[in-house]
Amino acid sequence: MPEFLQLLAPDEARALWFSHLAESRVGAEWIETAHALGRVAAEDVSAPHPLPHFPRSAVDGYAVRAQDTFGASDSQPAYLTLVGEVPMGEAPAFALHAGQCALIHTGGMLPEGADAVVMLEYTQPAASSVEAGRAEVEFLRPVAEGENVIRVGEDVAAGAVVLRRGTRLRPAEVGGLMALGITRLHVARKPRIGLISSGDEVIPPEQEPQAGQVRDVNAYALSALVEAAGGQAMRYGIVSDSMEALRRASQRAWDECDALVITAGSSASTRDITAAAIHSLGAPGVLVHGLHTRPGKPTILGVCTGKAVIGLPGNPVSALVNGYLFVAPLIEKLMDETPRPRPVLIARLSVNLASQAGREDWWPVRLRWVGGEGEWLAEPIFGKSNLIFTLAAADGLLRIPPDATGLSAGERVEVRLI
Amino acid sequence: MPEFLQLLAPDEARALWFSHLAESRVGAEWIETAHALGRVAAEDVSAPHPLPHFPRSAVDGYAVRAQDTFGASDSQPAYLTLVGEVPMGEAPAFALHAGQCALIHTGGMLPEGADAVVMLEYTQPAASSVEAGRAEVEFLRPVAEGENVIRVGEDVAAGAVVLRRGTRLRPAEVGGLMALGITRLHVARKPRIGLISSGDEVIPPEQEPQAGQVRDVNAYALSALVEAAGGQAMRYGIVSDSMEALRRASQRAWDECDALVITAGSSASTRDITAAAIHSLGAPGVLVHGLHTRPGKPTILGVCTGKAVIGLPGNPVSALVNGYLFVAPLIEKLMDETPRPRPVLIARLSVNLASQAGREDWWPVRLRWVGGEGEWLAEPIFGKSNLIFTLAAADGLLRIPPDATGLSAGERVEVRLI
Repeated sequence: MPEFLQLLAPDEARALWFSHLAESRVGAEWIETAHALGRVAAEDVSAPHPLPHFPRSAVDGYAVRAQDTFGASDSQPAYLTLVGEVPMGEAPAFALHAGQCALIHTGGMLPEGADAVVMLEYTQPAASSVEAGRAEVEFLRPVAEGENVIRVGEDVAAGAVVLRRGTRLRPAEVGGLMALGITRLHVARKPRIGLISSGDEVIPPEQEPQAGQVRDVNAYALSALVEAAGGQAMRYGIVSDSMEALRRASQRAWDECDALVITAGSSASTRDITAAAIHSLGAPGVLVHGLHTRPGKPTILGVCTGKAVIGLPGNPVSALVNGYLFVAPLIEKLMDETPRPRPVLIARLSVNLASQAGREDWWPVRLRWVGGEGEWLAEPIFGKSNLIFTLAAADGLLRIPPDATGLSAGERVEVRLI
Repeated sequence: MPEFLQLLAPDEARALWFSHLAESRVGAEWIETAHALGRVAAEDVSAPHPLPHFPRSAVDGYAVRAQDTFGASDSQPAYLTLVGEVPMGEAPAFALHAGQCALIHTGGMLPEGADAVVMLEYTQPAASSVEAGRAEVEFLRPVAEGENVIRVGEDVAAGAVVLRRGTRLRPAEVGGLMALGITRLHVARKPRIGLISSGDEVIPPEQEPQAGQVRDVNAYALSALVEAAGGQAMRYGIVSDSMEALRRASQRAWDECDALVITAGSSASTRDITAAAIHSLGAPGVLVHGLHTRPGKPTILGVCTGKAVIGLPGNPVSALVNGYLFVAPLIEKLMDETPRPRPVLIARLSVNLASQAGREDWWPVRLRWVGGEGEWLAEPIFGKSNLIFTLAAADGLLRIPPDATGLSAGERVEVRLI
């Protein structure tokens, strides 16, 4: 079978596929920042004003002019006259002159004339002043100008870019935007991913299967994967193994969605129909037909008139593993997301794993924490590659790179959590 | 200040706190499995029938009785009479007798009498039989009984537990349940986490702050964190630095929610009000007042008549970091979730980092992939600990354990992605 000599590994195949999708991206929409968790910024966002917009105390203590404390020590305290207390949430009604100090709380606004704050624990009321009916404070340490003060713009300067286009929002970004009053945000629309299941043997999950029939797993597992990746899953139901039926359903989904995933029935004949249906949707059509990987050799990657179309094997493990490898990155690409570091776990492999040179394998593994060793043990889950519950039992997927002929027990391996 | 000698590290504090929440968990509700991604199973789920429920072919080929192929080879093929083709999605209308074979596709149901499948590539039509008007197939390899067949119950046996109580659903679990027709699921209700922001200086994000005022960051950053962890955020707005106002708002939130998070204004006086308000909600009240950690020393952990109440510092970095350390695990606990391995990245530290012995520090770090070294470089983000944009700029948090007095440049460190 000479065709297999030309099969690409997943990374090469994805790169080739993406090179035909350079211009493909979804539009943008305005949403409330309060609901922007997990969304991807569609444009750079700049700070409309500095943060903080007034000088704030970083501690509880006394606002002072730093030079009034120079040389202060336990044996030779500096004495300053207390002129007031800074109210929270307001500008102080007074300014600070030479020889004066003011009580200030964390987050309070420095009075005009003050340039530093001395922490409460380095001060004490001056006994002499209390007797004399004046309010004086003893300072036992000096402070430098700016000490314990958050300067105007120290968190972010006015005009600085606070959110880069392509950033996926986490709680910290949501909070940062709120601090600047940016309560609406321009984000990438959620890519609509059409999902079609094909195969004469496939029935909806709510039906009772007769002999020879199986329930549709892929449309639901892939819907969940699409949603987890930030897309919107659009299910187009189950199509029989008829070229015309698949072509019609694919065309409708292609019209309505940003990308299309067809899971073929698992037989070779239905996979051929999938390739033909993809070709019918537009040029260039099928770009990659078959991958040098396991599971997932029959995967098809296509682009039809600017929209990505994927044919995944009907085998649910293969469909889901290749969903992680292709559908999730596609969704990120359609939103023009700048990827963040991907979480992986380093683990020690429990047994030898054989692999065919040149082929990339993904093994479902269970992870077990070995306290004594302070590390994770990765235990491969054996079983035929089409058993969905091997994947449900797994914590992650272990990758055997194409240039390896296997991995040895005890080797340190990377596990991608699923 | 002798009190600080008794401060607990975050892990110890959480364990103490959780020991008072042993009985606290939210109720359960029925939802559609198709919408169960990220939810936590409230009970064990068993397979109502075996999967597959009929013997299926794992390949494209010929269904046979294995013993009919024994000894078959290229030079001495076995010859079997072709009696039919198995239709997809139906039970074959024929049985297989000695000396017979049937064409079968991947996923097709084995005819009665068949016990193995020979892959198509190890067969060929028998030339002699075609001439004679009979359909015969040559088999060039033997198969063992069960070879290339997925047996009844091989994926999962009838009655086997397919989903353990406490499991958070991923795409694989959603798919597996659908395969069994389990379209509705009993899951833990999303814990309702009440969020109150306090502080005279705090205003809603949509308002224009005057001098001395700051916008409410914490309610929104923590809402996002609560949702990411699987909870339901309930915002109770901003309360002034008045004991009575905070007590009233806390009582209402406590009544309506499963747990309560109060972010105090950042001044010492508001933190004292928070502790008092927590005490007013019920016994035992405040359990932990202050942690040996940075940021987050003023964190308060309480339990009031069976409900967790947390006081977080007003400083938004501190609130968010301690949200990751306490609020997210609390949500998992309230759902009685069995935690999965947590994603961490191993990185090389770029610079020396000092730390105080006995204190646990969490540093925001940026991660940079160093291709030549094949590893991540963790670059700490310096800046005062209360600048929200230091966290927005970070990829993760680096932990300096309590027993370290710092970390050295070049050390391998664990980074928790945020």
